Amino acid sequence: MTLDMKNLDLLPACNRLRELAKRPYELSRPGALGRDRFLSFICSGAGFDVLYGTQQVDESVMDALQKLADESGVTGQFKVMKQGEVMNRIHGFDSENRKVLHTATRDVFDESPCNMEASGQAKNELAKLKDFLKDLDDGKITNSDGEAFTDMIHVGIGGSDLGPRAIYLALAVVRRPGRRVCFISNVDPDDAAAVLQGLDLRKTLVNVVSKSGTTLETLTNEELVRSAFVKAGLDPGRHFLAVTGQGSPMDNPEKYLRSFYMFDYIGGRYSSTSMVGGVMLGFALGYDGFVDLLQGADDMDKLAEEKDIRNNPPLILALLGIWNHNFLGYETVAVLPYSQALIRFTAHLQQCDMESNGKSCNRQGRAVEYSTGPILWGEPGTNGQHAFYQLIHQGTATVPVEFIGFRKSQYDDDILIKGTISQEKLNANLLAQSLALAVGKESDNPNQRFSGNRPSTVIMAERLTPYRMGALLAMYEAKIVFQGFIWNINSFDQEGVQLGKVLANRLLDHYSGRRQDAKYSGESKDSLGWAFMEAAGML
Amino acid sequence: MTLDMKNLDLLPACNRLRELAKRPYELSRPGALGRDRFLSFICSGAGFDVLYGTQQVDESVMDALQKLADESGVTGQFKVMKQGEVMNRIHGFDSENRKVLHTATRDVFDESPCNMEASGQAKNELAKLKDFLKDLDDGKITNSDGEAFTDMIHVGIGGSDLGPRAIYLALAVVRRPGRRVCFISNVDPDDAAAVLQGLDLRKTLVNVVSKSGTTLETLTNEELVRSAFVKAGLDPGRHFLAVTGQGSPMDNPEKYLRSFYMFDYIGGRYSSTSMVGGVMLGFALGYDGFVDLLQGADDMDKLAEEKDIRNNPPLILALLGIWNHNFLGYETVAVLPYSQALIRFTAHLQQCDMESNGKSCNRQGRAVEYSTGPILWGEPGTNGQHAFYQLIHQGTATVPVEFIGFRKSQYDDDILIKGTISQEKLNANLLAQSLALAVGKESDNPNQRFSGNRPSTVIMAERLTPYRMGALLAMYEAKIVFQGFIWNINSFDQEGVQLGKVLANRLLDHYSGRRQDAKYSGESKDSLGWAFMEAAGML
Repeated sequence: MTLDMKNLDLLPACNRLRELAKRPYELSRPGALGRDRFLSFICSGAGFDVLYGTQQVDESVMDALQKLADESGVTGQFKVMKQGEVMNRIHGFDSENRKVLHTATRDVFDESPCNMEASGQAKNELAKLKDFLKDLDDGKITNSDGEAFTDMIHVGIGGSDLGPRAIYLALAVVRRPGRRVCFISNVDPDDAAAVLQGLDLRKTLVNVVSKSGTTLETLTNEELVRSAFVKAGLDPGRHFLAVTGQGSPMDNPEKYLRSFYMFDYIGGRYSSTSMVGGVMLGFALGYDGFVDLLQGADDMDKLAEEKDIRNNPPLILALLGIWNHNFLGYETVAVLPYSQALIRFTAHLQQCDMESNGKSCNRQGRAVEYSTGPILWGEPGTNGQHAFYQLIHQGTATVPVEFIGFRKSQYDDDILIKGTISQEKLNANLLAQSLALAVGKESDNPNQRFSGNRPSTVIMAERLTPYRMGALLAMYEAKIVFQGFIWNINSFDQEGVQLGKVLANRLLDHYSGRRQDAKYSGESKDSLGWAFMEAAGML
Repeated sequence: MTLDMKNLDLLPACNRLRELAKRPYELSRPGALGRDRFLSFICSGAGFDVLYGTQQVDESVMDALQKLADESGVTGQFKVMKQGEVMNRIHGFDSENRKVLHTATRDVFDESPCNMEASGQAKNELAKLKDFLKDLDDGKITNSDGEAFTDMIHVGIGGSDLGPRAIYLALAVVRRPGRRVCFISNVDPDDAAAVLQGLDLRKTLVNVVSKSGTTLETLTNEELVRSAFVKAGLDPGRHFLAVTGQGSPMDNPEKYLRSFYMFDYIGGRYSSTSMVGGVMLGFALGYDGFVDLLQGADDMDKLAEEKDIRNNPPLILALLGIWNHNFLGYETVAVLPYSQALIRFTAHLQQCDMESNGKSCNRQGRAVEYSTGPILWGEPGTNGQHAFYQLIHQGTATVPVEFIGFRKSQYDDDILIKGTISQEKLNANLLAQSLALAVGKESDNPNQRFSGNRPSTVIMAERLTPYRMGALLAMYEAKIVFQGFIWNINSFDQEGVQLGKVLANRLLDHYSGRRQDAKYSGESKDSLGWAFMEAAGML
């Protein structure tokens, strides 16, 4: 099929939004907020309520955003993406030329999935995982002393680390008793050293995750961990698992106890629901826990096909983001979860969003003339309140906020102090921050004045469970994909990381040259890198 | 003394810088970078080298920045701050009206410190800490079974958490054997529940840190932890320590094994080198380790008095930041440590920087008409390379970067793969990123084009030790203070956090009202908050 992919600034709705942006809804005006507004600006689905009454929008803006969504055909593009259209490409130029089918990794519940082949592959891997986990439970797979494995080291970086790690931390409360996971990602040798210090390697599985099987950091860390096993007199072949692409250098059954596959149509930063997250999460939560996560993600993926923006949670998030970024001119977005469990979720989103949409070139290979992906940052509340909120309230920049909260705590281990429990204190703070940003406060003391009129969205659910974690993950993935469609950029490649790799390899040549020959001089090879290393005292 | 405190835009150097900003140094021009430039744009001190050859500056810009520093009298202001001038104030309006003497907490090595009284108080607290730690070592203080304490829970939030936690994680490698610290900060009850799960409370000290003795989160968490001790049949009086202001509600020797003081002239986000960090770090690193940290910080504080910006590391960082933010218009700054140990250092800086300088009102109570504190964010490399670097290289926004690196690893547990060790791989990546951002790359494929000309600074030291951690901490504290002076704002209060607190308390009234009376209706009290809570499904 032919998709009509136009730049944002060529869509008629763009002009209308530019007009409306001259006089955005004033949240700090007396009477601007009220019960009716709060209740009508809610978008719900898959267990989540997105409250956007505290955004600088009115019905005219919402109508124009609906037009924008229609004109750019975002839900149509989403649908063909799920069906297997080659969306990861730059037309007319060399590019990855791949399908984008991370959604297939959870499209495993229906008889007729959007893409039969990819969902079939996903089901295959799930069946392999189920067997493996059962063998662990049944004592068919043990260490050489016949003992069960209690720990897992997950070795990966970027997409093979951030998402899976964020989800593991978010769901630690429902871990299977006696099972723990730790993570090694950084090529900094201190990262691995610190992790290895605290473990009984005899009872530890090592899950090595690299799609290409060639990631420098991951291979280096795998070697480092392997040598620790050998030093401890253990056979790595009994402990090491691989998650990689079929046919990659890591796809070597002799080196690994089990191998699981991911496929070239799954981008690293969208891979948490593939085996990249699955093997570790299955070990930690049990197979059923992982399937619950998939179910939540799949339900959200289905909601994301809805054309009415008022009933499509990820789409409304995407459009409010475009309104704030491109029309009101706010450069960054803060994601602030009021849940300690989501402590690394923002770090995952940082990758998923900024690596997807930090682009300057459109899908036809031309430079875009508008701002694309915002800088995304944040820390959990209430911690952040005692840190950077000063700037969000009174700084010279306006920072749109996405608050995430849950009505109930995970551990249910709470305490009543001064008439309220901690979870109520947490949520009172969340809602109060959103209100304070919106309404502001006048004062005779200029230092105690709050301009207000600063936009935020509140994303609420009942309790953070595997299902809701899956839905939340998929909501943000779809938000990011929608924004990429609207900006007409390819959200699925990452050419911007290549140059650094090339230069790093050149610098590494200097190091190894010098190690082999003390008189080695890099001057002739690449004087720029050599000179910089010299200045930095590295030589 | 009278300080001449003028707005940035009233300084003559500002006009000159505006002129120069029309044609900034082009880093991507062929020949723009070279050995001489790298070697001449280095500023060193207290074990650190600041390399700024990859910033968009030339000698003219540097001269103008020197003029800016002179005209705003930053080093003079820094000096009188250290001597005890009341710098935390808004002239002509109600304000905190306090001295700013966090520097005194480490000005404890000279016969004649800058402020005799504050340094005297710091030495007093240090002596109390030394005694306490010795009593632990000598077995004079033990649990009720006569056993030594192995663990500490540090309970605090914001300034009482982020800085101390970042430093603890940075120096975990030199911890005293058998001693561990964990942290509870968030009012989210799941934070405390997760920490308490893994501890043997019998051997655990609890260090409760709140300057005011009234911090909601900290008192709530203290109660939660106390009740866990009581449930376990333990006497909290044998386990709990307090760090608080003299005379605060927490200053109650009957409730605590020991109390340590901090003083009203130390702001929370600048308090890591006071007892706020001291008690926990002394327990973890030993007294001498903590003193090494203080020595590094004190040495940097002394360097910060130097008027020549080319010899003053924090001042050059401050001025390059102003150049990028106010003259070249870059809204954010990324701090990217190539050291896993610094995993939470950026989170600490987020508070220290954004809470200090996220202000719109100058020191005379008038609105400023230029941009103040930038949004500061980041994650350790090389992890970040696999996450958000795409946007830094090819996004539509320019993000100035401060890289931090170390020539040697902490654990010295490294492995030679393909001719280089991991630490070399780490540093090759660090330097390569800085170069790649600067030089960019042309390509026939528009998607593989790198514009280059993106500025960064590289901050290098030999190895991350307590001394260097202290110096690094103080370097950033002074950078932030210098920028506040130049923007003519008060970097030492945080009025912007008040409104959220007030509104949160109103919402809490609704919760407790409803808890007492199911028919309670908040309508009459505060319909806005009630309506929002209702919309969020909280009622």
